[in-house]
Amino acid sequence: MVSIREEDIKIPLDVPLAARETYIRNYMEITRETGRMMLFAGDQKVEHLNDDFFGEDIPEDDNDPEHLFRIASKGKIGVFATQLGLIARYGMDYADVPYLVKINSKTNLVKTKQMDPFSNQLYDIEQIVEFRENSGLKILGIGYTIYLGSEFEADMLNQAAQLIYNAHKHGLITVLWIYPRGAAVADEKDPHLIAGATGVGATLNADFVKVNYPKKEGEKSEEVFKEAVLAAGRTKVVCAGGSSDDSAKFLEKLHKQIHISGAQGNATGRNVHQKSLDEAVRMCNAIYAITIDDASVDEALKIYDNK
Amino acid sequence: MVSIREEDIKIPLDVPLAARETYIRNYMEITRETGRMMLFAGDQKVEHLNDDFFGEDIPEDDNDPEHLFRIASKGKIGVFATQLGLIARYGMDYADVPYLVKINSKTNLVKTKQMDPFSNQLYDIEQIVEFRENSGLKILGIGYTIYLGSEFEADMLNQAAQLIYNAHKHGLITVLWIYPRGAAVADEKDPHLIAGATGVGATLNADFVKVNYPKKEGEKSEEVFKEAVLAAGRTKVVCAGGSSDDSAKFLEKLHKQIHISGAQGNATGRNVHQKSLDEAVRMCNAIYAITIDDASVDEALKIYDNK
Amino acid sequence: MVSIREEDIKIPLDVPLAARETYIRNYMEITRETGRMMLFAGDQKVEHLNDDFFGEDIPEDDNDPEHLFRIASKGKIGVFATQLGLIARYGMDYADVPYLVKINSKTNLVKTKQMDPFSNQLYDIEQIVEFRENSGLKILGIGYTIYLGSEFEADMLNQAAQLIYNAHKHGLITVLWIYPRGAAVADEKDPHLIAGATGVGATLNADFVKVNYPKKEGEKSEEVFKEAVLAAGRTKVVCAGGSSDDSAKFLEKLHKQIHISGAQGNATGRNVHQKSLDEAVRMCNAIYAITIDDASVDEALKIYDNK
Amino acid sequence: MVSIREEDIKIPLDVPLAARETYIRNYMEITRETGRMMLFAGDQKVEHLNDDFFGEDIPEDDNDPEHLFRIASKGKIGVFATQLGLIARYGMDYADVPYLVKINSKTNLVKTKQMDPFSNQLYDIEQIVEFRENSGLKILGIGYTIYLGSEFEADMLNQAAQLIYNAHKHGLITVLWIYPRGAAVADEKDPHLIAGATGVGATLNADFVKVNYPKKEGEKSEEVFKEAVLAAGRTKVVCAGGSSDDSAKFLEKLHKQIHISGAQGNATGRNVHQKSLDEAVRMCNAIYAITIDDASVDEALKIYDNK
Amino acid sequence: MVSIREEDIKIPLDVPLAARETYIRNYMEITRETGRMMLFAGDQKVEHLNDDFFGEDIPEDDNDPEHLFRIASKGKIGVFATQLGLIARYGMDYADVPYLVKINSKTNLVKTKQMDPFSNQLYDIEQIVEFRENSGLKILGIGYTIYLGSEFEADMLNQAAQLIYNAHKHGLITVLWIYPRGAAVADEKDPHLIAGATGVGATLNADFVKVNYPKKEGEKSEEVFKEAVLAAGRTKVVCAGGSSDDSAKFLEKLHKQIHISGAQGNATGRNVHQKSLDEAVRMCNAIYAITIDDASVDEALKIYDNK
Repeated sequence: MVSIREEDIKIPLDVPLAARETYIRNYMEITRETGRMMLFAGDQKVEHLNDDFFGEDIPEDDNDPEHLFRIASKGKIGVFATQLGLIARYGMDYADVPYLVKINSKTNLVKTKQMDPFSNQLYDIEQIVEFRENSGLKILGIGYTIYLGSEFEADMLNQAAQLIYNAHKHGLITVLWIYPRGAAVADEKDPHLIAGATGVGATLNADFVKVNYPKKEGEKSEEVFKEAVLAAGRTKVVCAGGSSDDSAKFLEKLHKQIHISGAQGNATGRNVHQKSLDEAVRMCNAIYAITIDDASVDEALKIYDNK
Repeated sequence: MVSIREEDIKIPLDVPLAARETYIRNYMEITRETGRMMLFAGDQKVEHLNDDFFGEDIPEDDNDPEHLFRIASKGKIGVFATQLGLIARYGMDYADVPYLVKINSKTNLVKTKQMDPFSNQLYDIEQIVEFRENSGLKILGIGYTIYLGSEFEADMLNQAAQLIYNAHKHGLITVLWIYPRGAAVADEKDPHLIAGATGVGATLNADFVKVNYPKKEGEKSEEVFKEAVLAAGRTKVVCAGGSSDDSAKFLEKLHKQIHISGAQGNATGRNVHQKSLDEAVRMCNAIYAITIDDASVDEALKIYDNK
Repeated sequence: MVSIREEDIKIPLDVPLAARETYIRNYMEITRETGRMMLFAGDQKVEHLNDDFFGEDIPEDDNDPEHLFRIASKGKIGVFATQLGLIARYGMDYADVPYLVKINSKTNLVKTKQMDPFSNQLYDIEQIVEFRENSGLKILGIGYTIYLGSEFEADMLNQAAQLIYNAHKHGLITVLWIYPRGAAVADEKDPHLIAGATGVGATLNADFVKVNYPKKEGEKSEEVFKEAVLAAGRTKVVCAGGSSDDSAKFLEKLHKQIHISGAQGNATGRNVHQKSLDEAVRMCNAIYAITIDDASVDEALKIYDNK
Repeated sequence: MVSIREEDIKIPLDVPLAARETYIRNYMEITRETGRMMLFAGDQKVEHLNDDFFGEDIPEDDNDPEHLFRIASKGKIGVFATQLGLIARYGMDYADVPYLVKINSKTNLVKTKQMDPFSNQLYDIEQIVEFRENSGLKILGIGYTIYLGSEFEADMLNQAAQLIYNAHKHGLITVLWIYPRGAAVADEKDPHLIAGATGVGATLNADFVKVNYPKKEGEKSEEVFKEAVLAAGRTKVVCAGGSSDDSAKFLEKLHKQIHISGAQGNATGRNVHQKSLDEAVRMCNAIYAITIDDASVDEALKIYDNK
Repeated sequence: MVSIREEDIKIPLDVPLAARETYIRNYMEITRETGRMMLFAGDQKVEHLNDDFFGEDIPEDDNDPEHLFRIASKGKIGVFATQLGLIARYGMDYADVPYLVKINSKTNLVKTKQMDPFSNQLYDIEQIVEFRENSGLKILGIGYTIYLGSEFEADMLNQAAQLIYNAHKHGLITVLWIYPRGAAVADEKDPHLIAGATGVGATLNADFVKVNYPKKEGEKSEEVFKEAVLAAGRTKVVCAGGSSDDSAKFLEKLHKQIHISGAQGNATGRNVHQKSLDEAVRMCNAIYAITIDDASVDEALKIYDNK
């Protein structure tokens, strides 16, 4: 099992003295004192509307937003990322869950061929901090999505820089979702481009940057992904889980991301919540085992299979 | 008859301690202590210009804005939603009416094929709260329209999130009108898309979300509407009344929305005000009977027919 | 002669207690205690550049901006509407004139076929109030133009709502010029559309709304205009004078607007200032006689003809 | 020689009591107590990049920005207009020069056929006033360019109105450069259009408005220019010097502008600085003689020829 | 060896009295008391994504952002320019390095043929100053890129003017990167155009302006570059290093820029960091020798070759 000590944390220098303790506490909690983050991603109700929650092969439970909170509460996770509205509606009944507020969101209705993507900031950090105080919840951090290469890139780079700077002032952990997308982007999964994305995350001072897993013909993803992990320097890289996948393959992929590519965790949504509560919890625990407890794929599969 | 107790209300966590009592009081009044809302919608003077108020088959009374206030005052309603300007002009003579300020509005002149819709915020919450104090009126909440899938979606999501956050700080109830619309939207009444819309309402922390009643060939609307009601979680869903309808059919539809689909009220405009005052009041009372008093369609029709 | 009492004024509820007296005083003065407003419109130096002030059939006097002030000072008017710049330059010599500051303006250079019209706010209300205090002038109100149906409608609705709300806070009377215009508008003079415009004025809480006089083939304008007057409710409607007209016809039209359509005044520019000073003053007085003193057309013509 | 007394100055009414003395002092200094302004225009390093400062027929001196300051210091001028950056770099060595800060600027790279012109505000008035205090320099006024008829006209009208209002609050003299330009403008030199431009300057409360000298086939410019001078009312009109000209012709033109058209000064750039220092100084003095000392063309030419 | 004294520094007049000492100290440090600046440019992780850091002929070290800090710490430089995020992540281990915060950045994904370039401000000066205090690092200045001739030029001119004004208020040294670019720009390396760019830098009050080295057929770059150096007046000009070059040629070019063209330093990125640490440090020292110690090319080459 991996583990870090408080004194090993490189606190970014925009965290002022008064917020260092909060930053350290949040960092330790969000990574369960390992430096690795298991982020349970539950922001798709805007991003994908109801496509991820209702339909063939999706259990009925998933159409109730509370499903996400039940999983986050019963399963082992590092942090549950979702919009502030849902946290405000369910938090009173799930006060034990560690939360990360996803600050911006857009729907999938307008396609890239019509207009380049822009995901707009919904709240400022002062409001998140006020909410943390008013609610008494464990708001550990914030998340923001940048579409690199979009014609609105300039707006998103500015919002991201501002949010991270201000979040750090209050000791919040910051996670950037960075996806190259837009008319100018030919191959969103190009490993070199994704390394560009993680590098941008580093220059913006994100604690974690979440990217798509690169894909290149004739190359092993876990190998070509190394470029991105290194390019991020002290900013840690995690992979988006993507659409639902065979569980064994998913866990194997995650293990390689961490142990071969050097990823420092994962961000998983549909691969968890598009399951019944019990199965979703076991999936969480399996992912957690690999990410936080350094379990092998086999050990994780046993947890998932409840053996 | 349905009824809720104060302690059953799940107060969203962005309502600060100091505003909880106001929120509860507003919530109880707007739902007449049932958790269901009967919203009398009177914002069409901007949205549809004078089309809904003057023309064949529309009684002359309707061209006088005071008609709306007379109905709101004499009929049974939960809340009367209209623009601040009208409230400021007639409120002194209709101080008993519970009001919801519709914060944004646009006309119907520019069609979607010319430009995607954008409905812009007219006031901020500080002004609404100041107006509540200066006027002494019962301003219970605020409303805002989002056109999901519009190229201006990003602006409206931001305005909605900000308005709800700030409205809750002052104990105001929040209602989102969410309509998918724009070049990117092929079928505005698609049940799955409308479930996406109610889900967005939930992530934005609306207390109520008002959507169009879904329509799908070969399906019963009251059945396919369930997806949207469930997707909204703890945010309550009400249906827009739409254009004027046969009264019996209208009441029957409403009864099914509530008792089959699970809607928590209704939002009715033209089906009420495009009638003479007396008939409009009876229509209000009939709708109220179904929504608030759990009356059957027959009982409601008797109220409407004044038997 | 018509006349109103202070206690008959329906003070809009966004006027706070501390500003009610100022509002009443301004209202009484701007309507000369009749409830009707005679607005002398002198904002065309931006709107039409020098086209209204220099050319064939325009007396030379009109090319000197002071011509407007001389008329406003010597003629009988309710209020003189122009841009703040001119008031600041001539007000020291015309301190007796009641002023209304036209807050936004655009030139006529860019035509609708090139781009939809947007007339941008030049000052905020705090500045107008500061100017009122610094200058000691009788600044009774403010005016703002909205082009309904323009692609920039959303900006103008927002600016208008904000300006009126803030003007009322300081007891200022508010006048909206509302003209449907833009690629989406087929017939700017359509009576039903103009009724939509006055209705928008009401929802925005304008004290007066100035529109173009409707025109419809086979209909009398004074008859079809009634729809617009009624749709405005408690907001009062006045007509733009339009381009220069035969004086007798002009006065007859005005008399009908007031006595048949129910308009509460008039807004006249070119029909006044495109005359020599003496004639312009007589024209003012004739218009004033109809508007404020309830004179007949014949009586007014005698005043104009100086008999 | 013309001359004005302090008590003759019509101080615009947006100048508050506390700033009236400063305004008068600045006005007297900028017009050398004549009411006429000789503005030495040195803002072309942005407007025309290096085209005006380096090339055939331009003396080498002109490529050093200090050339402008040497002329402004040694020649007789009313005020030297340039960007704040240059004043901040050279002002310590040229503290005797009266300055006017040109607030906005754009390069000439993007042509009108590509996009309509927009020249954006670089500083706000608070900064100019702060700079005046920190530097101790004689900052007498500010300048701003409006491209009338541009699709960005609305932005520039707003910025100009705000800047003038705020400049007057601090007693600064205001000069508008107003040029009709953009896809909508067919003839930038049309006398009637230029009269529209000076009229706009008056409505915006500019102390001086600088326009291009009108040109119309078959008409004398000095005659047709009268319309513009009169249309500006109490706002004074000066002409842009334009590209370099034969000196005798230039001085004759200037004399006619003042004595026939009624212009109240001039704004000259290239006709001065595209000369060696000595010749430039003599040209300044010649222009000054006509503008301020009411010299004849012959007297001025003698000054220029150093006889 | 060149050297300046504190009393020789022309402090720009927007530096207030209270910040003059800081400005002088920063200026002396950034130029190593010579008036010449050796800027090590490390902002390419956004500007060029990972293209400059990973690939054929690029040593593996360069893919770790810490490589830049190691060079900046071990090599002789004037200042290391990079984004705030990287400084915040590595500064605690490289506290001896003098930093310049690059305030704006954009990626290279959207090409000019798709949309003109806009690089947006990421932080304001208050935040940079706060960061300087919180971190205790030697933040000596800020940098900003303007794309002259872009359709977004107006935004960037405004941001640059504001940033420089505010940076000077806090004694920070300011560097503008000015590149003509966009649909309107035919030849980015045209000497006359680049002289326009340095002139714009002067009007904006930059302490240093960094431009591309001009290129013109049939002309020696070092000769035609003189126009730009002179046009900048008291603002100092440095050249961008550009893509990796043969080291001897590079040093020779630099020597000519300084001794023939009159450049006051250099800004070098890829020619330094696309080398192994040891070689990069030697390259730094060679560049430093020419820039700061007035070494000859041969002397510099010996340093590079470690003889």
